[in-house]
Amino acid sequence: MGPGPSDVHPEVYEALGRSTIGHLDPEFVKMMDEVKALTQYAFQTKNELTMIVSGPGSAGMETCFVNLVEPGDEVIVCQNGVFGGRMKENVERCGATAIMVMDDWGKPVDLEKVEAALKANPKVKVVAFVHAETSTGVRSDAEGLCKLAKAHGCLTIVDTVTSLGGIPVLVDEWGMDAVYSGSQKCLSCIPGLSPVTFSPAAVEHIKNRKHKVQSWFLDLNLVMQYWGGGKKRSYHHTAPVNSLYAMHESLVVLQKEGLQNTWDRHQTMHLQLKEGLENLGFKYLVETNYRLPQLNAVYLPEGLDEAAIRKQLLENDNLEVGGGLGDLAGKIWRIGLMGYSAKQSNVDYCLRALKELLS
Amino acid sequence: MGPGPSDVHPEVYEALGRSTIGHLDPEFVKMMDEVKALTQYAFQTKNELTMIVSGPGSAGMETCFVNLVEPGDEVIVCQNGVFGGRMKENVERCGATAIMVMDDWGKPVDLEKVEAALKANPKVKVVAFVHAETSTGVRSDAEGLCKLAKAHGCLTIVDTVTSLGGIPVLVDEWGMDAVYSGSQKCLSCIPGLSPVTFSPAAVEHIKNRKHKVQSWFLDLNLVMQYWGGGKKRSYHHTAPVNSLYAMHESLVVLQKEGLQNTWDRHQTMHLQLKEGLENLGFKYLVETNYRLPQLNAVYLPEGLDEAAIRKQLLENDNLEVGGGLGDLAGKIWRIGLMGYSAKQSNVDYCLRALKELLS
Repeated sequence: MGPGPSDVHPEVYEALGRSTIGHLDPEFVKMMDEVKALTQYAFQTKNELTMIVSGPGSAGMETCFVNLVEPGDEVIVCQNGVFGGRMKENVERCGATAIMVMDDWGKPVDLEKVEAALKANPKVKVVAFVHAETSTGVRSDAEGLCKLAKAHGCLTIVDTVTSLGGIPVLVDEWGMDAVYSGSQKCLSCIPGLSPVTFSPAAVEHIKNRKHKVQSWFLDLNLVMQYWGGGKKRSYHHTAPVNSLYAMHESLVVLQKEGLQNTWDRHQTMHLQLKEGLENLGFKYLVETNYRLPQLNAVYLPEGLDEAAIRKQLLENDNLEVGGGLGDLAGKIWRIGLMGYSAKQSNVDYCLRALKELLS
Repeated sequence: MGPGPSDVHPEVYEALGRSTIGHLDPEFVKMMDEVKALTQYAFQTKNELTMIVSGPGSAGMETCFVNLVEPGDEVIVCQNGVFGGRMKENVERCGATAIMVMDDWGKPVDLEKVEAALKANPKVKVVAFVHAETSTGVRSDAEGLCKLAKAHGCLTIVDTVTSLGGIPVLVDEWGMDAVYSGSQKCLSCIPGLSPVTFSPAAVEHIKNRKHKVQSWFLDLNLVMQYWGGGKKRSYHHTAPVNSLYAMHESLVVLQKEGLQNTWDRHQTMHLQLKEGLENLGFKYLVETNYRLPQLNAVYLPEGLDEAAIRKQLLENDNLEVGGGLGDLAGKIWRIGLMGYSAKQSNVDYCLRALKELLS
């Protein structure tokens, strides 16, 4: 019950261990087509360029930045936690300038500040923000931010690592352009893969680049030839075959339950956990309206040594919860209710263990 | 029996499916220390900076190039197959110039040409070459090339994707500097990870860079803080936990058998396969002295439709062999005897299936 990796679904483990076959085997290619369709469902998109990056969320993040950003560009980056800072690093390593819109950790991205930045920087072509900040448990208004960016002729890069599968991520309806997520949060797959999707406008932008993409491994012009629709696939790199079996299964599990049911389950479990935590004296960092059900960032009751209790929980109860990052280190816990972990037995177990430890 | 992924060892599958725990869990961190020591054994090195990149071999390749090469640099790249070409792409995407030393596909890298290039280009600081070309089954003289580079004050970047675990790769003895491999060839782990190791001289070079590494995900200055020795590890990205369980187990299997025994087994199986193939009219592309036991690149007996027979093998006999790449497409097969796949039953099965098909 940390901030990810979450518990892996038993059926995902089962799929993971299937015999490794070639990455160009017709049977495997057929499965990749299914993975693509299932990922489109998860992202609620018809985007043709929807695929799984062969690396963790940070490789997915880098895929978005190195393909959409060119040397000399200006990019608005909204930062309200750890991962906005990582976006800034990505922009700068592309030889571009990051124009930062800063908000306090635990607060959502402020649309008015973003609008002001867009007006003040007419050269900007890309706006980047984190939908669900894993470092604080806050949800920003992705729909509002995407509409605002579009109104100023900008594309968006959106981090949905912690949101996908836990709360609505409506790529087409909200008009998101380059979106990445992670396998190990609300999708409850093993860690190490990053689902991504790119709007037709993003693809057009990539095709019209002036400079070659600085990463060969993540160059979508090349990767597309392997993941691209039904026709002959050309070899780019050896796909992580077994991890993709697992990804396929975790997306099947998601589709079987249905997105709405999955979102509802996360919310229900969150409300139960919240009630129990508040009864024990924990206080939420984030305001109700922007709170992520899948990531409960809470201040501990006063006078407690958070690291010591966290260690006890891990050692005595075999229960992982996350500590705070940055300025919040030593101050908050981050309790995950992600994917398969968002279940009654986990909520009960966690509250019971805490009750015993704190009484 | 293609050019990789190879058959995965049963114990590796078993390890792969173990419960996912946190990437900062003390138990996991302990396992990472073991993975590091086991990887040092596989590479025959004492290099402190020895680790597993969270992506396939091409991510390992990119890790070496983006960390060692800076904009404006000149790099000698030896090309005698597909992967030398990929190295050139990597150099250029770092904003550097690749000075190419070209050899025919199927021939080893010519040391005299490399020496001439080193003499003609005194500004060069890095020499890159492929130890075992997966596209042709040829072995180049890694020891000779490393000594030559060193004599001219250059560091080496060496691709050992197909060699590690199949033939000797003696990192310290030969004086290799930045070396990457893949999990899915002679290590018989699942695809998707890349073992890498860096000499103290390479680390020094990285620490003295003038420009930031262009990839955040692959920046060793950051990754080192997570993989670095016993002390407190700081979070960089979520490690591919289950894949690392598998990597750990595949390295344990290697250590148990012992490197020398593993190399011998590859050679023995190769000689048996070779005899059978030659009896059936196949001819080797590569001269005996430079032939890789783990990758048998062979011309088919005349008049045969290679693609049709390869398809029959896959569909009727459930046996994968690889086709040729580049100019060799349609002309050769690449039959792998890698890691767990390098065994008597595979050799026999393959020869029996071919005999039936061709008779």
